[in-house]
Amino acid sequence: MKRLFHWLLDPHGRTARLALGEKAQSVDFVESPPWSPHAEVSKAGPGARGPMLIDTDGTAGRVVAVGTHAIVEHIEETVRDARLLPINALDRAEARRLWQWTEESMAEVTASLLAERVNQVIRRSRAPDSNALRTGAHALRGKLTVLNALAEHRPWIGGRSLSVADLSVAAHLSAFDYFGDVDWLSAPDLKTWYAKLKSRPAMRAVLADRLDGARPAAHYADLDF
Amino acid sequence: MKRLFHWLLDPHGRTARLALGEKAQSVDFVESPPWSPHAEVSKAGPGARGPMLIDTDGTAGRVVAVGTHAIVEHIEETVRDARLLPINALDRAEARRLWQWTEESMAEVTASLLAERVNQVIRRSRAPDSNALRTGAHALRGKLTVLNALAEHRPWIGGRSLSVADLSVAAHLSAFDYFGDVDWLSAPDLKTWYAKLKSRPAMRAVLADRLDGARPAAHYADLDF
Repeated sequence: MKRLFHWLLDPHGRTARLALGEKAQSVDFVESPPWSPHAEVSKAGPGARGPMLIDTDGTAGRVVAVGTHAIVEHIEETVRDARLLPINALDRAEARRLWQWTEESMAEVTASLLAERVNQVIRRSRAPDSNALRTGAHALRGKLTVLNALAEHRPWIGGRSLSVADLSVAAHLSAFDYFGDVDWLSAPDLKTWYAKLKSRPAMRAVLADRLDGARPAAHYADLDF
Repeated sequence: MKRLFHWLLDPHGRTARLALGEKAQSVDFVESPPWSPHAEVSKAGPGARGPMLIDTDGTAGRVVAVGTHAIVEHIEETVRDARLLPINALDRAEARRLWQWTEESMAEVTASLLAERVNQVIRRSRAPDSNALRTGAHALRGKLTVLNALAEHRPWIGGRSLSVADLSVAAHLSAFDYFGDVDWLSAPDLKTWYAKLKSRPAMRAVLADRLDGARPAAHYADLDF
């Protein structure tokens, strides 16, 4: 049995959950918020933070992998079914390029827009930082343009088949979409792609999560949005 | 024959060069600055930027991989000699954790401290942004503490053998060190590790680079520093 330490709106945690879900892995979940990591995560090593995957068989939990790259590449290497990377070397490279691009370019949106939304829920009295919201919303618009251009010409973000690039994009956008921050009207081809993603069982499990004290946007979990 | 589009002080470009060097790959290099990417890079796809590896055999250059993850994982999958990831699954996960940690946590230093140093060289008249220098220097101090703790207990950053985690750390620190921004006295175990890295042929090639108009810090390429 495996256990994942994650936080429900962390895009990296969602990436790991989607990957484990696509691979039909049996996993239980433990909450580890970024601002207050679970003690098990902190002791995994200098700089360690969630998502963290451990193996709970045996007497003590053994750390399997920490971070999206280690987790996804590990389950891709050890579980052959439901490939998250294409077989062909050039296609693999393209999927990994867009996975890395997504994580790097969405980090700014996570650190500003998403962090501010979460702050408002967790520390209710706090006045919203409109500068952070504006910075994040502006950055997100630019990324949606790039992603829509990809979705216009390809069935999946990384190419001809579903890959970790799709999971990474869905993980990030779904977290932002919880607060209604994704302007789907501005990205019609990406919207079509996202509807396809939303219907997958792994994604439906992620979309069932609810943050205490904050309902998601009305269309959040709808397949027709 | 392969060709790498990169920029000489970009930590991601340096990571790719170190990986190709460790694998003893025959590569020629083309400059592609982050602020003005080469046309070949821009046309590789939405969001594409250096480092980019292409195959120059045949009539047209064929894109092999874009970005550090795609490039390093690709050459690791296709060239078996000089492994950049350990064989054991748990050790691989630890190397990938620290590779990702390095890229994510050093991004702030690159965007502030290194970007400001480069700006001062490229646009000579510009007054230094002391806030960016201070922010970057502060962030770098925190990272050095984490890395020194790792170097104190392990022969290599990722564990018992040299891995891409070492190359990623060396790529970032060497770029910052060009301007003398790494306080080696504060991280004695990391300094010992870096001396070991500096003596490798792949690293010596990277340290031979010179930016027009800016000499490196006096100790920059010295094995004894």
